[in-house]
Amino acid sequence: MQEAQEELALHFDQLLSELRQGHLNEFRELFLSLHIYDQAQFYQSLEEQERERLYTYLSPKELADMFDVIEEDNEHMKDYLDEMRPNYAADMLSEMYSDNAVDLLNTLDKSQVSKYLSLMDVEDASEIKELLHYEDDTAGSIMTTEFVSIVANQTVRSAMYVLKNEADVAETIYYVYVVDTDNRLVGVISLRDLIVNDDDTLIADVMSERVIAVHVGDDQEDVAKTIRDYDFLAVPVTDYDDHLLGIVTVDDIIDVIDDEAASDYSGLAGVNVEEVSENPLKAASKRLPWLITLLFLGMSTASLISHYEELVSEASILAVFISLITGTAGNAGTQSLAVAVRRIAMSDDKDTSFVSLIVSEVLTGLITGAVTGLTIFLIVGIWKHNFTLGFVIGMAMLCAITVANLAGSLIPMLMDKLGFDPAVASGPFITTLSDLTSVLIYFNIASLFLQYFM
Amino acid sequence: MQEAQEELALHFDQLLSELRQGHLNEFRELFLSLHIYDQAQFYQSLEEQERERLYTYLSPKELADMFDVIEEDNEHMKDYLDEMRPNYAADMLSEMYSDNAVDLLNTLDKSQVSKYLSLMDVEDASEIKELLHYEDDTAGSIMTTEFVSIVANQTVRSAMYVLKNEADVAETIYYVYVVDTDNRLVGVISLRDLIVNDDDTLIADVMSERVIAVHVGDDQEDVAKTIRDYDFLAVPVTDYDDHLLGIVTVDDIIDVIDDEAASDYSGLAGVNVEEVSENPLKAASKRLPWLITLLFLGMSTASLISHYEELVSEASILAVFISLITGTAGNAGTQSLAVAVRRIAMSDDKDTSFVSLIVSEVLTGLITGAVTGLTIFLIVGIWKHNFTLGFVIGMAMLCAITVANLAGSLIPMLMDKLGFDPAVASGPFITTLSDLTSVLIYFNIASLFLQYFM
Repeated sequence: MQEAQEELALHFDQLLSELRQGHLNEFRELFLSLHIYDQAQFYQSLEEQERERLYTYLSPKELADMFDVIEEDNEHMKDYLDEMRPNYAADMLSEMYSDNAVDLLNTLDKSQVSKYLSLMDVEDASEIKELLHYEDDTAGSIMTTEFVSIVANQTVRSAMYVLKNEADVAETIYYVYVVDTDNRLVGVISLRDLIVNDDDTLIADVMSERVIAVHVGDDQEDVAKTIRDYDFLAVPVTDYDDHLLGIVTVDDIIDVIDDEAASDYSGLAGVNVEEVSENPLKAASKRLPWLITLLFLGMSTASLISHYEELVSEASILAVFISLITGTAGNAGTQSLAVAVRRIAMSDDKDTSFVSLIVSEVLTGLITGAVTGLTIFLIVGIWKHNFTLGFVIGMAMLCAITVANLAGSLIPMLMDKLGFDPAVASGPFITTLSDLTSVLIYFNIASLFLQYFM
Repeated sequence: MQEAQEELALHFDQLLSELRQGHLNEFRELFLSLHIYDQAQFYQSLEEQERERLYTYLSPKELADMFDVIEEDNEHMKDYLDEMRPNYAADMLSEMYSDNAVDLLNTLDKSQVSKYLSLMDVEDASEIKELLHYEDDTAGSIMTTEFVSIVANQTVRSAMYVLKNEADVAETIYYVYVVDTDNRLVGVISLRDLIVNDDDTLIADVMSERVIAVHVGDDQEDVAKTIRDYDFLAVPVTDYDDHLLGIVTVDDIIDVIDDEAASDYSGLAGVNVEEVSENPLKAASKRLPWLITLLFLGMSTASLISHYEELVSEASILAVFISLITGTAGNAGTQSLAVAVRRIAMSDDKDTSFVSLIVSEVLTGLITGAVTGLTIFLIVGIWKHNFTLGFVIGMAMLCAITVANLAGSLIPMLMDKLGFDPAVASGPFITTLSDLTSVLIYFNIASLFLQYFM
């Protein structure tokens, strides 16, 4: 890897000097010999003036191949398009795979989108317009329309002929989808199967009629699950009437899995880890809304304790264990939350597991609470020579942990039921909420037993 | 999807009745018409006696195809192998893709592994033995040896001939790797390129000589990054001398990405979310080690506060804000941790970003701390009509958040430097640690200003 990277760096240097010196042919040969991902890395390292020259050196199709691999969340995407001549940009967008073109257009203003669409040829523009209508995070929003489809009553030979012709524009040629005259999906055959069968075999005889397809409105996570479970390279997307609308390829699914993982992780931490900025001012501005919101939630805990200030001044020993109880309950609640969010994401049938998950989490809370409570009972009893105080702390721990587990599982479940992403019920939110309930439980139990441990 | 699932359920019912009634042919026809993932779902729904009959109905090769898609972390894997005749099991293991066979063998006892290896034919066994030697989580440990390789001085026609012959055993036929006489990797050509080129074209003329490969010792996360960045369906694995050893396919990479995401998520929550058990006793036993460890860490915070008990009894108002300060600092530390873990995972060059990340996190902490501190200064000042107290709380907040951000970024960075997975520095650990520093900061500042706010 090290060696390859150094070789690539040398290549980039040479490319840059060819570009600066205006050596069109040398530049093109060297540039096009690179893998498109490396082309994209080189392109993104250029200055605006250099990029402008590059546009005159490459055809819209050549640039489109490279743009297909640039992530659409690249913050400079808009600038790149702006610095191209509008016609060139529109041609490039037409040449891109439709799913990537749509992703890119989705980052632009509406007026820009219609400008580019009006400059494209009518067919490309209408294809893209249709894709732009699908809701975010559905199969429709990530599918591409560049797939290969044939009818069943032809031979392997003629299917291979179709493939050869479409190899240049199709996003994958490794599956060929079989449709009836009404464009309804009736079968699928992989290129592997085409290759091992005789040229004169009828497609109808060798295709698989048991096609696994996803619905255009399915959530992208479900599409990811299908591709992952079946080890597919692509999955067809259909409407309610089984018409073939497009395909989702495995590379897009990897992005989906990455995004979902990052968003779950962000949820648990209460910070968007994908928008990582080196600039502390920007980073702080992203994190402050959550922190300040939680600060106000934390204020209710503070005002609750304030309500018990007299109790604390009478028994200042109680203050010693506030952070231990809130902290431990918060830790237990976070565990519960993570398990619940994960199980909601993994579960196929969400309804049956609702009650069983809650019950299981509360029971888990009772057991962990009992063990933790007993431990702290012994520690406090021995340390402070006061087993009644130990009992108060232990009981509070048991109840606080059980309630934290209930909140940690119930809140994401409810959010899921209400149609929100359960991962939004972040870890910090659960711990801050559990601070409140823990303190309430703690001081109530302490008040009950005050006369016995003081 | 709904409809398809119902159809599949009907299918399973019919399959089960054919199996129970001993209709060999009907069962085989129906079973083999299913996609292997669905075959595996059916197989896993059977009772032991039914599975034992199924082994007599299917060839080791047919069973192997199905076992290739069962995740190796399935807890019943060992039982499945045990209930087969050892020879049948060994034959099945030989027929599986080598990477999957190795994953499966890795879950067994050493004595069992050598039993099966001794029953396999020598060539298969030696291939698997070699793969078993690679360290966990490296490219070597997830690669398969069933790839298609050719030499450069042949035509597209003869390459296609090789492909047809190997299509049945190769894990992917969509890339053909080109090697020299010494088995050094010199090029690659995709099936797409083979198809669009004339049969008489020389491979040497159309192959890509710029092969992106990974080293056998590379971390599986780096392999995942390469496949994801380049949108590959597979990547070749080589040794230091560029000898082609195997390939890693995209379906294995999806599993890697899933596992890494789950382990990061688990780390942040302080619980292994992958070992989800419905049994509360088991779940509690998994979570308690962390909770009890953190409880003891929390005890140091308690004993620290205990040290300041006199201060608290003098100024019980101080107790009101303990959980607010520890909670908010904990939230900020968790944000910092998540960003650091993510950035370590994403960064290509880990050394340069070390200092800049720490500096950036501390500065972010100072800014968020200043804003949060100012907010709480105003709230407390107005609420308690005591701006000196507000100043103490605000200052403590500022310092506690800054220290929490430092800990949240420094600890995962240090773990990464020391060769540990930075995600092990879990969220609960950071928050519990930050409780300690926050309390220390809070009471020290409070002691300094005690005479002014009381």
